[in-house]
Amino acid sequence: MENTVVILCDIGNTSYHFLEGDTHYKKSVELFDPETIKEKVYYICVNLHVQKKLKSLKNWIDLSLHIDMQNYYSTMGIDRIIACEAIQNGVIVDAGSAITVDVVIDGTFEGGFIYPGTKAMQRTYKDISPALAYEFNYDLDLNKLPKNSQDAISYGFLKTLHVEVLSHKKDIFLTGGDAHKLIKIFPQAKLEEILLFSGMKKIIEEKLYKRVN
Amino acid sequence: MENTVVILCDIGNTSYHFLEGDTHYKKSVELFDPETIKEKVYYICVNLHVQKKLKSLKNWIDLSLHIDMQNYYSTMGIDRIIACEAIQNGVIVDAGSAITVDVVIDGTFEGGFIYPGTKAMQRTYKDISPALAYEFNYDLDLNKLPKNSQDAISYGFLKTLHVEVLSHKKDIFLTGGDAHKLIKIFPQAKLEEILLFSGMKKIIEEKLYKRVN
Repeated sequence: MENTVVILCDIGNTSYHFLEGDTHYKKSVELFDPETIKEKVYYICVNLHVQKKLKSLKNWIDLSLHIDMQNYYSTMGIDRIIACEAIQNGVIVDAGSAITVDVVIDGTFEGGFIYPGTKAMQRTYKDISPALAYEFNYDLDLNKLPKNSQDAISYGFLKTLHVEVLSHKKDIFLTGGDAHKLIKIFPQAKLEEILLFSGMKKIIEEKLYKRVN
Repeated sequence: MENTVVILCDIGNTSYHFLEGDTHYKKSVELFDPETIKEKVYYICVNLHVQKKLKSLKNWIDLSLHIDMQNYYSTMGIDRIIACEAIQNGVIVDAGSAITVDVVIDGTFEGGFIYPGTKAMQRTYKDISPALAYEFNYDLDLNKLPKNSQDAISYGFLKTLHVEVLSHKKDIFLTGGDAHKLIKIFPQAKLEEILLFSGMKKIIEEKLYKRVN
């Protein structure tokens, strides 16, 4: 197993995120045809439309079927589950269209929550009032209560999340498309761009590799 | 001053909120004509359209012109400012279309932030994914990380706000249209339905009454 290059793919609502060896790259969900890959691909997918298509392709192997779901809940996103599988102890902050925060202790999922993502929250403030249509200030001093509108919404979005995440007093693993933004408010976090792929590899090694031997 | 019944009015985007003696009541911004009142009315107004109309009515007195703005910032809503004027020490949580949180120490505004209101946040989660279109669970146990979708968004919305507000270690004054919902997560708070009117009375007594004597 260690010597074989496998293709891994994490499929979201907008893109296929591939890992081949040390290289990871993205393909658009709209433009990419999964039939063009003939090699074996281990994948997870939160996109129902793509999922349907992949079911008919024998070389695309759905890793969600190999998870021990006992520790998780039925409506929990497979991406959150796989990220939890990747670590032994810590808080995972996955910043995408939503920001999911999940706590793992001694390899067991302890629970987690869902906070709006940066784009969603920006739109929320704008929709409440045009007077709140600011970009977020990620360089905000979180130890000082704001005295201007831009910082007042930035603090509302970021400090509340910050205090809650830190309250768990655990290592923070930061991943997802907006991880580079949130690293500013979680400078102590480990930035793990390919955390999901680590989780996927672990499942393959523990569940699939064991099985074929 | 103490023996005169004055009419106070706090005007938002959807309604005129009146206080006459001990009675408070609301009138729709769309339907109510302010010219029908002939008595003197002291008001604050965040609705630009209504504000324009009131400028021409001599018996409607704009209290925002009598605030010492030095402690506040120029784009801060007059409703937040007046609420701060009402208290000496504490955190004000005003739950309307936005939830504003302002800290006052020894009568001085220390800063504050803006968090999305309950309706706005509900819509935000729904727009991120139809799978998150739940009502919030205000009876959620905030000391336990969720293991289901409804609680995962409820915790994301409520616990983050809760931890931040409590971190200031001050008395909490809860006001605004959704105060009755948030009291569930801030059971220790003072529910102050007419906090803005207390602030308005204070301004009248300190600034206007003093002036005419």
